[in-house]
Amino acid sequence: MATPQSESSYELFYWPTIQGRGEFVRLALEDAAIAYSDVARLPKERGGGVEAIFRVLDGNGGGGRHFAPPVLRHRGGTEPRDFVVSHTACILDFLAVRSTRHGLLPEADPGARHTALQLQLTIADLAGEAHETHHPIAASLYYEDQKDEAHKRSATFLRERMPKFLGYFEAVLRENKASNKEYLVGAGFTYVDLSAFQAVTGLAQAFPNAFDRVRKDTPLLCALAERVAARPKVAAYLGSPRRLAPSTNDLFRHYPELDP
Amino acid sequence: MATPQSESSYELFYWPTIQGRGEFVRLALEDAAIAYSDVARLPKERGGGVEAIFRVLDGNGGGGRHFAPPVLRHRGGTEPRDFVVSHTACILDFLAVRSTRHGLLPEADPGARHTALQLQLTIADLAGEAHETHHPIAASLYYEDQKDEAHKRSATFLRERMPKFLGYFEAVLRENKASNKEYLVGAGFTYVDLSAFQAVTGLAQAFPNAFDRVRKDTPLLCALAERVAARPKVAAYLGSPRRLAPSTNDLFRHYPELDP
Repeated sequence: MATPQSESSYELFYWPTIQGRGEFVRLALEDAAIAYSDVARLPKERGGGVEAIFRVLDGNGGGGRHFAPPVLRHRGGTEPRDFVVSHTACILDFLAVRSTRHGLLPEADPGARHTALQLQLTIADLAGEAHETHHPIAASLYYEDQKDEAHKRSATFLRERMPKFLGYFEAVLRENKASNKEYLVGAGFTYVDLSAFQAVTGLAQAFPNAFDRVRKDTPLLCALAERVAARPKVAAYLGSPRRLAPSTNDLFRHYPELDP
Repeated sequence: MATPQSESSYELFYWPTIQGRGEFVRLALEDAAIAYSDVARLPKERGGGVEAIFRVLDGNGGGGRHFAPPVLRHRGGTEPRDFVVSHTACILDFLAVRSTRHGLLPEADPGARHTALQLQLTIADLAGEAHETHHPIAASLYYEDQKDEAHKRSATFLRERMPKFLGYFEAVLRENKASNKEYLVGAGFTYVDLSAFQAVTGLAQAFPNAFDRVRKDTPLLCALAERVAARPKVAAYLGSPRRLAPSTNDLFRHYPELDP
């Protein structure tokens, strides 16, 4: 893969067949119209496949070791010239700050960066807990081997945690609305709104019954998710083959027995 | 609490009787010799108690809503003047950047900020999984009500996940050592080293038997934890009453039955 790097380029390393945590990064790249290569989805002979992920995790991508995907490599940038970064929220902060012209963070507000990061980390916690609903014992075991525990964990997630998380984002939006702000970060649209769309969409797909019960209490959050889905570049992406279909291999999974 | 704010001041809002996730922030404040108030540990009549945490979560601390503690309030700073930030890794990034003179991040290396953040988020994932070992079904239930599941979850955590996480940090240190660097971020000492100390200490205390089995494979990480513990300000803190004792109400918990 010794291609000449004449201009800045972004490469995403993430599991090629699921949305997963990589989807939060894909949505930011797509909405910001940043050209990128979804490396593991390329054929092996072009340096793709899951082997590409393991190479970059092991530090053979030139940017140190990384614990887990998603990983983003930026080539031909400045300060430092090439950079490899992992962990969803860290990647999003990196992208937003390195490419302020792409509009993933408002430039005017110096506090917006940390407000966005803390909201993103709360979304990461919600996504993590959604994953635990089907894997409460071990990520290395099949769902079928931890079904009883998944049943218990899902019940408390849907009864206590999902309403608490979604209610929190709703309250943030409600208070922002009182000052005529329409996004999760008061200062304006950020990558957090894209991630909130993904979380809402994932939960509604995984737990349609439970989600219907919280929908009436989260009108602003649901409206935000719809506004995000209608953003031209997001809409184009969602209608493209680049957007992978949900499945029971993904982070958000629909098992009817977990959503009575 | 209408005290005049003539100079910059930091207030930490965290559960007053446990180390928990707040300890990562306390260690950074202590090592950097930043004066701070551990608000919930103050008496109620001075604005303390857990009520202070709920007030700041609800946005009555003047800095928007926050999902969970730890929360840090900075008063009398610049850009913006007062700021409230939550989520451990976000607080640490905020502190490190706002107070570069305190040495929580090397100033020379522009990539160090993201390298530190991604390592910190990996430590946060490790801490989260350590918490799941005693609460695999619901944080709202007692350990005693999810003991069977805790037994299963702990077994896979100790067999698969703890060695993977600690082995990752060891590999990062080993590669840095090959370039004569002695901390987790190649550019120099950061808040991540303090957090690694806390994670190692917490795991060794919670799972002494399992930790003894990985110790021989993680000599650089264990040595780093010892070096951090010997830093003068850390050592003074660890010997002070400000350092809370471990307990079975904490994030890292020692239950002999989970550590065969």
